[in-house]
Amino acid sequence: MPERGHRNIPGSLKQPLADFKVGVDNAIFSVDTERNRLLILLVKRQDEPFLGQRSLPGTLVRQGESLEDAAYRILAEKIRVENLYLEQLYTFGGPGRDPREDATSYGVRYLSVSYFALVRFAEAELIYQTTGDVAWYPIEDIPKLAFDHERILQYGYQRLRNKLEYSPIAFEVLPEVFTLNDLYQLYTTVLGENFSDYSNFRSRLLKLGFLCDTGIKVSRGAGRPASLYRFDSKAFAPLKDKPLVFI
Amino acid sequence: MPERGHRNIPGSLKQPLADFKVGVDNAIFSVDTERNRLLILLVKRQDEPFLGQRSLPGTLVRQGESLEDAAYRILAEKIRVENLYLEQLYTFGGPGRDPREDATSYGVRYLSVSYFALVRFAEAELIYQTTGDVAWYPIEDIPKLAFDHERILQYGYQRLRNKLEYSPIAFEVLPEVFTLNDLYQLYTTVLGENFSDYSNFRSRLLKLGFLCDTGIKVSRGAGRPASLYRFDSKAFAPLKDKPLVFI
Repeated sequence: MPERGHRNIPGSLKQPLADFKVGVDNAIFSVDTERNRLLILLVKRQDEPFLGQRSLPGTLVRQGESLEDAAYRILAEKIRVENLYLEQLYTFGGPGRDPREDATSYGVRYLSVSYFALVRFAEAELIYQTTGDVAWYPIEDIPKLAFDHERILQYGYQRLRNKLEYSPIAFEVLPEVFTLNDLYQLYTTVLGENFSDYSNFRSRLLKLGFLCDTGIKVSRGAGRPASLYRFDSKAFAPLKDKPLVFI
Repeated sequence: MPERGHRNIPGSLKQPLADFKVGVDNAIFSVDTERNRLLILLVKRQDEPFLGQRSLPGTLVRQGESLEDAAYRILAEKIRVENLYLEQLYTFGGPGRDPREDATSYGVRYLSVSYFALVRFAEAELIYQTTGDVAWYPIEDIPKLAFDHERILQYGYQRLRNKLEYSPIAFEVLPEVFTLNDLYQLYTTVLGENFSDYSNFRSRLLKLGFLCDTGIKVSRGAGRPASLYRFDSKAFAPLKDKPLVFI
């Protein structure tokens, strides 16, 4: 959310310092590569405010706990997963973003440091306390969310698309070996049908030089057998800090 | 600061919630295009802790104030500037990052939401309270900084390099019209001499189609007169949401 150009800045407010509780909210995405669905993890709130409404899984930071540890803690309470990608997304901290803040008294404020995570759908196992308290939702069918979590979700969705364009994040969620069509389906699921045609995508990715043909072919359906590739992290290493576009 | 792979997550700590003060710290960069220097704005601390030491300009968020307003407030107290680019950088909130936190009592913690800003060096006017309390420092000659501000600075420096590679941020700090050599010098100042040779850089940028030749030429030194270009934001608009590499 960049800000450009001139802005009128109000004079020094001379208000006393604000006191904060700090929350961590996770936008956890997965791509169901079997059914070409992009999913987001939502929980049903067990407490006020917004009791019973859906939200991103979150928690308040405890004494002695780092932001990142809080992000991992909430993740570990909701899903079991071996491989994951996690990074900080954005911090939302405007006054009035939580109804527990009393606007008239300028009481304690609630700031949210959001984290973005990507996990393998097939591998992530949900941890239920009660039926339906945690579930994957397709990105195009999200219920009304508590707090400003729709904004956090949209911000995370944009980050996911940027990551696909500029980084090898797709290989964190694909199986070890995959066909180029699997890879293309993953990109199409997140970026939409029109991001690129298959043959351009294929030739661009192969030219980048970090996809390694395993020599194994698979037959799926009626088409010709397709080659299985794997991501070659050694071949990618020298490209790591170079500007790259994947699509 | 992405995290990959499996991680052991400690069991629920059941510690009470932490209380926070929230600081905003600005990594304000400028490129002195006349002397090809990348500069960062530092202040001399007027209070404990780290009294007299250099730090990024920062403040604590006040009651009723948003994070972004705090970022603009501190900026407006240190420099006068018409054009600026500002965006949130990263939030640093681990326990023990501020000596005002008492480790034994787990007292109030100090979280820092950092902002990244880029301003035009020629246009930014420093606001002194006392001589030398605010100054531009060349990036390769930074004194020891208070708190974890060296880390914030490094993070901001990386963001600046990424922005140059993937976004038209350079045109926020160049004058309205510029030669392609001016643009190249700006990139070289930030990314180092070896990022690209001039003729590749030139042909790549021109091919992207958003640099508009004004038809005016300037003579500087002994070389041939050079064409003056301007950034054509209308021609850039359709490219805005596409993945692009500028170098």
